[in-house]
Amino acid sequence: MRNIALRLMYDGTNYHGWQFQKNAVTVEETLEKALSRVCGEPVKAVGCGRTDAGVHAKNYCANFKTNSRIPVDKIPLAVNTLLPNDIAVQSACEVDMGFNAILSCEKKEYTYLIYNSRIKDPFYHCRAYFYPVHLNENTMAEAAGAFVGEHDFSAVRSVGTDVQSTIRTVYYFQVERKGDIIELRVCANGFLYNMARAMVGTVIYSALGKIAPESIEEILNSGRRSLAGPTVPPQGLYMTKVWYNGAAGNLMDN
Amino acid sequence: MRNIALRLMYDGTNYHGWQFQKNAVTVEETLEKALSRVCGEPVKAVGCGRTDAGVHAKNYCANFKTNSRIPVDKIPLAVNTLLPNDIAVQSACEVDMGFNAILSCEKKEYTYLIYNSRIKDPFYHCRAYFYPVHLNENTMAEAAGAFVGEHDFSAVRSVGTDVQSTIRTVYYFQVERKGDIIELRVCANGFLYNMARAMVGTVIYSALGKIAPESIEEILNSGRRSLAGPTVPPQGLYMTKVWYNGAAGNLMDN
Repeated sequence: MRNIALRLMYDGTNYHGWQFQKNAVTVEETLEKALSRVCGEPVKAVGCGRTDAGVHAKNYCANFKTNSRIPVDKIPLAVNTLLPNDIAVQSACEVDMGFNAILSCEKKEYTYLIYNSRIKDPFYHCRAYFYPVHLNENTMAEAAGAFVGEHDFSAVRSVGTDVQSTIRTVYYFQVERKGDIIELRVCANGFLYNMARAMVGTVIYSALGKIAPESIEEILNSGRRSLAGPTVPPQGLYMTKVWYNGAAGNLMDN
Repeated sequence: MRNIALRLMYDGTNYHGWQFQKNAVTVEETLEKALSRVCGEPVKAVGCGRTDAGVHAKNYCANFKTNSRIPVDKIPLAVNTLLPNDIAVQSACEVDMGFNAILSCEKKEYTYLIYNSRIKDPFYHCRAYFYPVHLNENTMAEAAGAFVGEHDFSAVRSVGTDVQSTIRTVYYFQVERKGDIIELRVCANGFLYNMARAMVGTVIYSALGKIAPESIEEILNSGRRSLAGPTVPPQGLYMTKVWYNGAAGNLMDN
Protein backbone atom coordinates (compact mmCIF):
# COMPACT_ATOMS: atom_id res chain seq x y z
CA MET A 1 0.00 0.00 0.00
CA ARG A 2 1.15 3.52 -0.83
CA ASN A 3 0.26 6.93 0.53
CA ILE A 4 -0.13 9.55 -2.23
CA ALA A 5 -0.30 13.31 -1.78
CA LEU A 6 -2.06 15.45 -4.37
CA ARG A 7 -1.78 19.13 -5.09
CA LEU A 8 -5.08 20.45 -6.38
CA MET A 9 -7.09 23.55 -7.25
CA TYR A 10 -10.79 24.11 -7.28
CA ASP A 11 -13.36 26.75 -7.93
CA GLY A 12 -15.65 26.20 -4.95
CA THR A 13 -18.71 27.96 -6.41
CA ASN A 14 -20.63 24.78 -7.14
CA TYR A 15 -19.61 22.81 -4.04
CA HIS A 16 -20.74 22.65 -0.45
CA GLY A 17 -17.15 22.90 0.71
CA TRP A 18 -14.48 20.24 0.90
CA GLN A 19 -15.84 17.76 3.41
CA PHE A 20 -18.24 14.92 2.59
CA GLN A 21 -21.91 15.66 3.32
CA LYS A 22 -24.82 13.34 2.94
CA ASN A 23 -27.11 15.57 0.90
CA ALA A 24 -24.81 17.95 -0.92
CA VAL A 25 -22.04 17.69 -3.49
CA THR A 26 -18.61 18.37 -2.01
CA VAL A 27 -15.09 18.50 -3.43
CA GLU A 28 -14.02 15.51 -1.31
CA GLU A 29 -16.78 13.29 -2.65
CA THR A 30 -16.17 14.38 -6.25
CA LEU A 31 -12.43 13.73 -5.93
CA GLU A 32 -12.91 10.38 -4.19
CA LYS A 33 -15.22 9.16 -6.98
CA ALA A 34 -12.59 9.99 -9.60
CA LEU A 35 -9.71 8.51 -7.54
CA SER A 36 -11.69 5.32 -6.90
CA ARG A 37 -12.18 4.81 -10.62
CA VAL A 38 -8.51 5.45 -11.37
CA CYS A 39 -7.36 3.13 -8.55
CA GLY A 40 -9.95 0.43 -9.14
CA GLU A 41 -10.87 0.36 -5.46
CA PRO A 42 -12.74 2.61 -3.03
CA VAL A 43 -10.55 5.54 -2.03
CA LYS A 44 -10.92 7.84 0.93
CA ALA A 45 -9.19 11.23 0.71
CA VAL A 46 -7.95 13.40 3.59
CA GLY A 47 -7.93 17.13 2.88
CA CYS A 48 -5.68 19.79 4.42
CA GLY A 49 -8.65 21.72 5.73
CA ARG A 50 -12.40 22.03 5.63
CA THR A 51 -13.29 24.80 3.29
CA ASP A 52 -16.85 26.15 3.44
CA ALA A 53 -19.36 26.24 0.62
CA GLY A 54 -18.23 28.68 -2.06
CA VAL A 55 -14.62 28.90 -0.81
CA HIS A 56 -11.92 28.28 -3.44
CA ALA A 57 -8.49 26.69 -3.39
CA LYS A 58 -5.49 27.63 -5.53
CA ASN A 59 -3.20 25.25 -3.67
CA TYR A 60 -4.84 22.48 -1.72
CA CYS A 61 -3.29 19.26 -0.48
CA ALA A 62 -5.09 15.95 -0.08
CA ASN A 63 -3.72 12.46 0.50
CA PHE A 64 -5.08 8.95 0.01
CA LYS A 65 -3.89 5.39 0.49
CA THR A 66 -4.18 2.82 -2.23
CA ASN A 67 -3.08 -0.64 -3.36
CA SER A 68 -3.27 0.47 -6.98
CA ARG A 69 0.02 0.23 -8.88
CA ILE A 70 -0.59 3.21 -11.12
CA PRO A 71 2.64 5.25 -11.49
CA VAL A 72 2.35 8.37 -9.38
CA ASP A 73 3.14 10.72 -12.27
CA LYS A 74 0.23 9.27 -14.27
CA ILE A 75 -2.29 10.13 -11.57
CA PRO A 76 -2.93 13.84 -12.34
CA LEU A 77 -3.95 13.36 -15.98
CA ALA A 78 -5.88 10.16 -15.23
CA VAL A 79 -7.87 11.82 -12.46
CA ASN A 80 -8.40 15.09 -14.34
CA THR A 81 -10.05 13.21 -17.18
CA LEU A 82 -12.73 12.10 -14.73
CA LEU A 83 -13.04 15.31 -12.72
CA PRO A 84 -15.39 18.16 -13.65
CA ASN A 85 -13.75 21.32 -15.00
CA ASP A 86 -13.87 23.18 -11.69
CA ILE A 87 -11.46 20.79 -9.95
CA ALA A 88 -7.95 19.95 -11.18
CA VAL A 89 -5.11 17.86 -9.81
CA GLN A 90 -1.85 19.71 -10.55
CA SER A 91 0.65 17.10 -9.38
CA ALA A 92 1.11 14.06 -7.14
CA CYS A 93 3.88 12.40 -5.15
CA GLU A 94 4.37 9.41 -2.87
CA VAL A 95 4.68 10.30 0.81
CA ASP A 96 5.42 8.46 4.06
CA MET A 97 2.61 6.22 5.30
CA GLY A 98 2.33 8.49 8.35
CA PHE A 99 1.60 11.60 6.27
CA ASN A 100 -1.85 13.11 6.81
CA ALA A 101 -2.81 16.24 4.84
CA ILE A 102 -4.47 17.93 7.81
CA LEU A 103 -2.47 16.62 10.78
CA SER A 104 0.93 17.01 9.12
CA CYS A 105 0.20 20.57 7.99
CA GLU A 106 2.53 23.11 9.62
CA LYS A 107 0.89 26.32 8.48
CA LYS A 108 -1.56 27.59 5.91
CA GLU A 109 -2.16 30.76 3.98
CA TYR A 110 -5.59 32.02 2.98
CA THR A 111 -6.09 34.91 0.59
CA TYR A 112 -9.24 37.01 0.60
CA LEU A 113 -10.19 39.19 -2.38
CA ILE A 114 -12.38 42.26 -2.07
CA TYR A 115 -13.58 43.89 -5.28
CA ASN A 116 -13.72 47.45 -4.03
CA SER A 117 -15.33 49.56 -6.72
CA ARG A 118 -18.59 51.41 -7.09
CA ILE A 119 -19.67 49.16 -9.96
CA LYS A 120 -19.60 45.38 -9.83
CA ASP A 121 -17.38 43.42 -12.21
CA PRO A 122 -19.07 40.34 -13.73
CA PHE A 123 -15.72 38.53 -13.91
CA TYR A 124 -15.31 38.72 -10.13
CA HIS A 125 -18.81 37.43 -9.39
CA CYS A 126 -18.33 34.39 -7.09
CA ARG A 127 -14.58 35.09 -7.13
CA ALA A 128 -14.35 38.14 -4.84
CA TYR A 129 -16.47 40.01 -2.28
CA PHE A 130 -18.02 43.02 -4.03
CA TYR A 131 -17.79 45.97 -1.66
CA PRO A 132 -18.90 49.27 -3.24
CA VAL A 133 -17.89 51.58 -0.34
CA HIS A 134 -14.28 52.72 -0.68
CA LEU A 135 -11.96 51.10 1.87
CA ASN A 136 -8.63 52.58 2.87
CA GLU A 137 -6.04 49.86 2.55
CA ASN A 138 -3.60 51.56 4.94
CA THR A 139 -6.10 51.52 7.80
CA MET A 140 -6.84 47.91 6.91
CA ALA A 141 -3.14 47.01 6.98
CA GLU A 142 -2.78 48.62 10.40
CA ALA A 143 -5.76 46.65 11.74
CA ALA A 144 -4.50 43.43 10.15
CA GLY A 145 -1.14 43.84 11.86
CA ALA A 146 -2.85 43.69 15.26
CA PHE A 147 -3.75 40.03 14.68
CA VAL A 148 -0.15 38.92 14.15
CA GLY A 149 1.35 36.79 16.93
CA GLU A 150 0.08 34.17 19.35
CA HIS A 151 -3.41 34.94 20.61
CA ASP A 152 -6.62 33.36 21.76
CA PHE A 153 -8.76 33.81 18.64
CA SER A 154 -12.15 33.07 20.27
CA ALA A 155 -13.37 36.57 19.35
CA VAL A 156 -13.06 35.82 15.65
CA ARG A 157 -14.43 32.32 15.34
CA SER A 158 -17.87 30.86 14.87
CA VAL A 159 -18.97 28.14 17.21
CA GLY A 160 -19.92 24.80 15.74
CA THR A 161 -16.74 22.73 15.96
CA ASP A 162 -15.03 21.46 19.06
CA VAL A 163 -11.37 22.33 19.40
CA GLN A 164 -8.95 21.61 22.20
CA SER A 165 -7.50 25.09 22.18
CA THR A 166 -8.48 28.42 20.66
CA ILE A 167 -4.89 29.67 20.74
CA ARG A 168 -3.23 30.07 17.34
CA THR A 169 -0.24 31.90 15.92
CA VAL A 170 -0.74 34.27 12.99
CA TYR A 171 2.58 34.71 11.16
CA TYR A 172 1.50 37.51 8.84
CA PHE A 173 -1.66 39.27 7.73
CA GLN A 174 -0.95 41.56 4.80
CA VAL A 175 -3.20 43.94 2.90
CA GLU A 176 -2.39 45.11 -0.59
CA ARG A 177 -4.46 47.09 -3.08
CA LYS A 178 -4.07 46.20 -6.75
CA GLY A 179 -6.38 48.59 -8.59
CA ASP A 180 -9.95 47.78 -7.55
CA ILE A 181 -8.89 44.55 -5.83
CA ILE A 182 -7.84 44.51 -2.19
CA GLU A 183 -5.90 41.33 -1.48
CA LEU A 184 -5.57 40.13 2.12
CA ARG A 185 -3.12 37.31 2.84
CA VAL A 186 -3.11 35.66 6.22
CA CYS A 187 -0.84 32.84 7.35
CA ALA A 188 -1.25 30.91 10.60
CA ASN A 189 -0.36 27.57 12.16
CA GLY A 190 -4.08 26.83 12.16
CA PHE A 191 -7.46 28.51 11.68
CA LEU A 192 -10.52 28.20 13.89
CA TYR A 193 -13.90 27.87 12.21
CA ASN A 194 -14.58 31.07 10.17
CA MET A 195 -11.52 32.72 11.75
CA ALA A 196 -10.06 34.04 8.48
CA ARG A 197 -13.40 35.48 7.37
CA ALA A 198 -14.12 37.11 10.77
CA MET A 199 -10.63 38.65 10.77
CA VAL A 200 -11.29 40.12 7.32
CA GLY A 201 -14.66 41.45 8.52
CA THR A 202 -12.93 43.10 11.47
CA VAL A 203 -10.33 44.68 9.19
CA ILE A 204 -13.11 46.04 6.94
CA TYR A 205 -14.84 47.49 10.02
CA SER A 206 -11.62 49.28 10.90
CA ALA A 207 -11.59 50.95 7.46
CA LEU A 208 -15.20 52.02 8.05
CA GLY A 209 -14.21 53.58 11.40
CA LYS A 210 -16.38 51.13 13.34
CA ILE A 211 -13.42 49.41 15.06
CA ALA A 212 -10.19 51.23 15.88
CA PRO A 213 -7.06 49.26 14.93
CA GLU A 214 -5.73 49.97 18.44
CA SER A 215 -8.74 48.22 20.00
CA ILE A 216 -8.22 44.89 18.23
CA GLU A 217 -5.82 43.58 20.89
CA GLU A 218 -8.50 44.31 23.51
CA ILE A 219 -11.18 42.61 21.41
CA LEU A 220 -9.00 39.48 21.13
CA ASN A 221 -8.35 39.54 24.87
CA SER A 222 -12.10 39.84 25.59
CA GLY A 223 -12.84 36.68 23.61
CA ARG A 224 -16.22 38.18 22.71
CA ARG A 225 -17.33 37.50 19.14
CA SER A 226 -19.82 40.36 19.27
CA LEU A 227 -17.06 42.96 19.58
CA ALA A 228 -15.29 41.91 16.38
CA GLY A 229 -16.46 42.51 12.79
CA PRO A 230 -18.81 40.32 10.77
CA THR A 231 -17.90 37.09 8.97
CA VAL A 232 -17.47 38.11 5.34
CA PRO A 233 -18.95 35.96 2.54
CA PRO A 234 -17.12 32.82 1.37
CA GLN A 235 -16.73 33.61 -2.33
CA GLY A 236 -13.75 35.93 -1.70
CA LEU A 237 -11.77 33.28 0.17
CA TYR A 238 -9.03 31.12 -1.36
CA MET A 239 -6.73 28.60 0.25
CA THR A 240 -3.45 29.67 -1.33
CA LYS A 241 -0.63 27.83 0.41
CA VAL A 242 0.01 24.91 2.76
CA TRP A 243 3.36 24.04 4.30
CA TYR A 244 4.70 20.54 5.09
CA ASN A 245 7.99 18.87 5.80
CA GLY A 246 9.41 16.30 3.40
CA ALA A 247 8.04 15.17 0.03
CA ALA A 248 4.65 16.90 0.42
CA GLY A 249 6.51 20.10 1.24
CA ASN A 250 8.30 19.92 -2.12
CA LEU A 251 5.03 19.08 -3.88
CA MET A 252 3.28 22.16 -2.51
CA ASP A 253 6.30 24.39 -2.97
CA ASN A 254 6.70 24.10 -6.72
CA MET B 1 -36.22 61.99 -26.68
CA ARG B 2 -32.60 61.28 -25.82
CA ASN B 3 -30.02 58.86 -27.19
CA ILE B 4 -27.96 57.22 -24.42
CA ALA B 5 -24.73 55.24 -24.84
CA LEU B 6 -23.75 52.64 -22.25
CA ARG B 7 -20.40 51.08 -21.52
CA LEU B 8 -20.89 47.55 -20.23
CA MET B 9 -19.16 44.29 -19.36
CA TYR B 10 -20.49 40.78 -19.39
CA ASP B 11 -19.44 37.24 -18.73
CA GLY B 12 -21.01 35.54 -21.74
CA THR B 13 -20.98 32.01 -20.31
CA ASN B 14 -24.70 31.87 -19.62
CA TYR B 15 -25.88 33.75 -22.73
CA HIS B 16 -26.55 32.86 -26.31
CA GLY B 17 -24.56 35.88 -27.41
CA TRP B 18 -25.57 39.51 -27.60
CA GLN B 19 -28.36 39.54 -30.15
CA PHE B 20 -32.02 38.83 -29.40
CA GLN B 21 -33.16 35.28 -30.16
CA LYS B 22 -36.62 33.85 -29.87
CA ASN B 23 -35.81 30.77 -27.79
CA ALA B 24 -32.63 31.60 -25.91
CA VAL B 25 -31.55 34.14 -23.33
CA THR B 26 -29.25 36.79 -24.76
CA VAL B 27 -27.43 39.80 -23.30
CA GLU B 28 -29.50 42.19 -25.43
CA GLU B 29 -32.80 40.87 -24.15
CA THR B 30 -31.59 40.85 -20.52
CA LEU B 31 -30.33 44.43 -20.80
CA GLU B 32 -33.47 45.65 -22.58
CA LYS B 33 -35.68 44.21 -19.83
CA ALA B 34 -33.72 46.09 -17.15
CA LEU B 35 -33.57 49.33 -19.19
CA SER B 36 -37.32 49.16 -19.89
CA ARG B 37 -38.04 48.97 -16.17
CA VAL B 38 -35.70 51.85 -15.38
CA CYS B 39 -37.13 54.00 -18.19
CA GLY B 40 -40.75 53.03 -17.65
CA GLU B 41 -41.24 52.31 -21.35
CA PRO B 42 -40.17 49.59 -23.77
CA VAL B 43 -36.54 50.10 -24.74
CA LYS B 44 -34.65 48.68 -27.71
CA ALA B 45 -30.85 48.52 -27.44
CA VAL B 46 -28.34 48.56 -30.30
CA GLY B 47 -25.07 46.76 -29.56
CA CYS B 48 -21.64 47.43 -31.06
CA GLY B 49 -21.38 43.89 -32.37
CA ARG B 50 -22.95 40.49 -32.33
CA THR B 51 -20.99 38.33 -29.98
CA ASP B 52 -21.53 34.58 -30.14
CA ALA B 53 -22.74 32.32 -27.34
CA GLY B 54 -20.08 32.11 -24.63
CA VAL B 55 -18.10 35.14 -25.85
CA HIS B 56 -17.35 37.78 -23.19
CA ALA B 57 -17.07 41.55 -23.22
CA LYS B 58 -14.81 43.69 -21.05
CA ASN B 59 -15.75 46.88 -22.91
CA TYR B 60 -18.95 46.80 -24.90
CA CYS B 61 -20.99 49.74 -26.15
CA ALA B 62 -24.75 49.79 -26.59
CA ASN B 63 -27.13 52.69 -27.18
CA PHE B 64 -30.86 53.22 -26.74
CA LYS B 65 -33.39 56.00 -27.21
CA THR B 66 -35.80 56.97 -24.48
CA ASN B 67 -38.31 59.60 -23.37
CA SER B 68 -37.45 58.87 -19.72
CA ARG B 69 -36.07 61.86 -17.81
CA ILE B 70 -33.78 59.84 -15.55
CA PRO B 71 -30.43 61.69 -15.15
CA VAL B 72 -27.83 59.92 -17.26
CA ASP B 73 -25.43 59.43 -14.32
CA LYS B 74 -28.14 57.58 -12.37
CA ILE B 75 -28.59 54.99 -15.10
CA PRO B 76 -25.67 52.61 -14.31
CA LEU B 77 -26.62 51.92 -10.68
CA ALA B 78 -30.36 51.82 -11.47
CA VAL B 79 -29.86 49.28 -14.25
CA ASN B 80 -27.27 47.22 -12.35
CA THR B 81 -29.75 46.67 -9.53
CA LEU B 82 -32.00 44.89 -12.03
CA LEU B 83 -29.33 43.07 -14.02
CA PRO B 84 -27.99 39.61 -13.09
CA ASN B 85 -24.45 39.52 -11.70
CA ASP B 86 -22.86 38.51 -14.99
CA ILE B 87 -23.75 41.80 -16.74
CA ALA B 88 -22.78 45.25 -15.48
CA VAL B 89 -23.19 48.76 -16.85
CA GLN B 90 -20.02 50.72 -16.05
CA SER B 91 -21.05 54.18 -17.22
CA ALA B 92 -23.46 56.08 -19.47
CA CYS B 93 -23.53 59.32 -21.43
CA GLU B 94 -25.88 61.21 -23.72
CA VAL B 95 -24.91 61.08 -27.40
CA ASP B 96 -26.12 62.67 -30.67
CA MET B 97 -29.41 61.30 -31.92
CA GLY B 98 -27.56 59.96 -34.98
CA PHE B 99 -25.20 57.79 -32.89
CA ASN B 100 -25.57 54.05 -33.46
CA ALA B 101 -23.32 51.67 -31.48
CA ILE B 102 -22.63 49.42 -34.47
CA LEU B 103 -22.78 51.82 -37.42
CA SER B 104 -20.79 54.59 -35.72
CA CYS B 105 -18.06 52.21 -34.59
CA GLU B 106 -14.67 53.02 -36.14
CA LYS B 107 -12.69 50.02 -34.99
CA LYS B 108 -12.81 47.21 -32.45
CA GLU B 109 -10.35 45.13 -30.50
CA TYR B 110 -10.94 41.51 -29.54
CA THR B 111 -8.69 39.65 -27.12
CA TYR B 112 -8.38 35.87 -27.17
CA LEU B 113 -6.98 33.97 -24.19
CA ILE B 114 -5.36 30.55 -24.50
CA TYR B 115 -4.56 28.70 -21.28
CA ASN B 116 -1.49 26.85 -22.51
CA SER B 117 -0.47 24.40 -19.82
CA ARG B 118 -0.46 20.64 -19.47
CA ILE B 119 -2.99 20.78 -16.64
CA LYS B 120 -6.27 22.70 -16.79
CA ASP B 121 -6.89 25.59 -14.40
CA PRO B 122 -10.42 25.60 -12.91
CA PHE B 123 -10.36 29.40 -12.71
CA TYR B 124 -9.97 29.69 -16.49
CA HIS B 125 -12.78 27.26 -17.26
CA CYS B 126 -15.20 29.17 -19.58
CA ARG B 127 -12.76 32.10 -19.51
CA ALA B 128 -9.95 30.83 -21.78
CA TYR B 129 -9.31 28.08 -24.34
CA PHE B 130 -7.46 25.24 -22.59
CA TYR B 131 -4.74 24.03 -24.94
CA PRO B 132 -2.41 21.45 -23.35
CA VAL B 133 0.11 21.21 -26.23
CA HIS B 134 2.86 23.81 -25.85
CA LEU B 135 2.58 26.63 -28.39
CA ASN B 136 5.53 28.83 -29.34
CA GLU B 137 4.42 32.42 -29.01
CA ASN B 138 7.11 33.73 -31.36
CA THR B 139 5.89 31.59 -34.25
CA MET B 140 2.36 32.71 -33.39
CA ALA B 141 3.38 36.36 -33.42
CA GLU B 142 4.99 35.91 -36.83
CA ALA B 143 1.83 34.30 -38.22
CA ALA B 144 -0.38 36.95 -36.61
CA GLY B 145 1.65 39.70 -38.29
CA ALA B 146 0.72 38.30 -41.71
CA PHE B 147 -2.93 39.30 -41.16
CA VAL B 148 -2.15 42.97 -40.59
CA GLY B 149 -3.25 45.34 -43.36
CA GLU B 150 -6.12 45.54 -45.81
CA HIS B 151 -7.14 42.12 -47.12
CA ASP B 152 -10.08 40.12 -48.30
CA PHE B 153 -10.75 37.98 -45.22
CA SER B 154 -13.04 35.41 -46.87
CA ALA B 155 -10.60 32.63 -45.96
CA VAL B 156 -11.15 33.25 -42.26
CA ARG B 157 -14.86 33.77 -41.97
CA SER B 158 -17.81 31.47 -41.56
CA VAL B 159 -20.68 31.85 -43.94
CA GLY B 160 -24.07 32.66 -42.48
CA THR B 161 -24.33 36.42 -42.67
CA ASP B 162 -24.58 38.58 -45.76
CA VAL B 163 -22.02 41.32 -46.04
CA GLN B 164 -21.46 43.81 -48.85
CA SER B 165 -17.71 43.37 -48.78
CA THR B 166 -15.30 40.89 -47.25
CA ILE B 167 -12.45 43.41 -47.27
CA ARG B 168 -11.34 44.64 -43.87
CA THR B 169 -8.30 46.33 -42.41
CA VAL B 170 -6.50 44.72 -39.46
CA TYR B 171 -4.51 47.40 -37.60
CA TYR B 172 -2.65 45.07 -35.28
CA PHE B 173 -2.64 41.42 -34.21
CA GLN B 174 -0.32 40.92 -31.24
CA VAL B 175 0.64 37.78 -29.38
CA GLU B 176 2.01 37.89 -25.85
CA ARG B 177 2.71 35.11 -23.37
CA LYS B 178 2.09 35.85 -19.69
CA GLY B 179 3.04 32.66 -17.87
CA ASP B 180 0.60 29.96 -18.96
CA ILE B 181 -1.70 32.46 -20.68
CA ILE B 182 -1.18 33.41 -24.31
CA GLU B 183 -3.01 36.65 -25.03
CA LEU B 184 -3.86 37.55 -28.62
CA ARG B 185 -5.11 41.08 -29.34
CA VAL B 186 -6.53 41.93 -32.72
CA CYS B 187 -7.86 45.29 -33.83
CA ALA B 188 -9.69 45.91 -37.10
CA ASN B 189 -12.16 48.31 -38.68
CA GLY B 190 -14.63 45.44 -38.74
CA PHE B 191 -14.81 41.68 -38.30
CA LEU B 192 -16.56 39.16 -40.53
CA TYR B 193 -18.50 36.35 -38.87
CA ASN B 194 -16.07 34.20 -36.81
CA MET B 195 -13.13 36.06 -38.35
CA ALA B 196 -11.30 36.67 -35.06
CA ARG B 197 -11.68 33.03 -33.99
CA ALA B 198 -10.59 31.65 -37.38
CA MET B 199 -7.53 33.94 -37.34
CA VAL B 200 -6.61 32.61 -33.88
CA GLY B 201 -7.10 29.04 -35.11
CA THR B 202 -4.77 29.75 -38.04
CA VAL B 203 -2.14 31.24 -35.73
CA ILE B 204 -2.33 28.13 -33.51
CA TYR B 205 -1.88 25.94 -36.61
CA SER B 206 1.27 27.89 -37.42
CA ALA B 207 2.70 27.06 -33.97
CA LEU B 208 1.87 23.40 -34.61
CA GLY B 209 3.75 23.53 -37.93
CA LYS B 210 0.57 22.87 -39.92
CA ILE B 211 0.52 26.28 -41.61
CA ALA B 212 3.71 28.22 -42.40
CA PRO B 213 3.51 31.89 -41.41
CA GLU B 214 4.80 32.76 -44.89
CA SER B 215 1.83 31.01 -46.52
CA ILE B 216 -0.84 33.07 -44.76
CA GLU B 217 -0.79 35.82 -47.37
CA GLU B 218 -1.42 33.17 -50.03
CA ILE B 219 -4.23 31.63 -47.97
CA LEU B 220 -5.90 35.05 -47.67
CA ASN B 221 -5.50 35.61 -51.41
CA SER B 222 -7.06 32.22 -52.18
CA GLY B 223 -10.20 33.09 -50.20
CA ARG B 224 -10.53 29.39 -49.33
CA ARG B 225 -11.73 28.74 -45.79
CA SER B 226 -10.44 25.15 -45.93
CA LEU B 227 -6.82 26.30 -46.19
CA ALA B 228 -6.91 28.33 -42.97
CA GLY B 229 -6.99 26.99 -39.41
CA PRO B 230 -10.07 25.99 -37.41
CA THR B 231 -12.45 28.35 -35.63
CA VAL B 232 -11.39 28.21 -31.98
CA PRO B 233 -14.03 27.94 -29.20
CA PRO B 234 -15.90 31.04 -28.05
CA GLN B 235 -15.04 31.00 -24.32
CA GLY B 236 -11.55 32.46 -24.91
CA LEU B 237 -12.88 35.50 -26.79
CA TYR B 238 -13.44 38.93 -25.23
CA MET B 239 -14.51 42.19 -26.85
CA THR B 240 -11.98 44.50 -25.21
CA LYS B 241 -12.21 47.88 -26.94
CA VAL B 242 -14.41 49.88 -29.31
CA TRP B 243 -13.54 53.25 -30.82
CA TYR B 244 -15.91 56.11 -31.62
CA ASN B 245 -15.75 59.83 -32.30
CA GLY B 246 -17.33 62.31 -29.91
CA ALA B 247 -19.02 61.64 -26.58
CA ALA B 248 -19.17 57.85 -26.97
CA GLY B 249 -15.45 57.92 -27.74
CA ASN B 250 -14.78 59.54 -24.38
CA LEU B 251 -17.14 57.08 -22.68
CA MET B 252 -15.26 54.06 -24.03
CA ASP B 253 -11.85 55.62 -23.53
CA ASN B 254 -11.95 56.11 -19.75
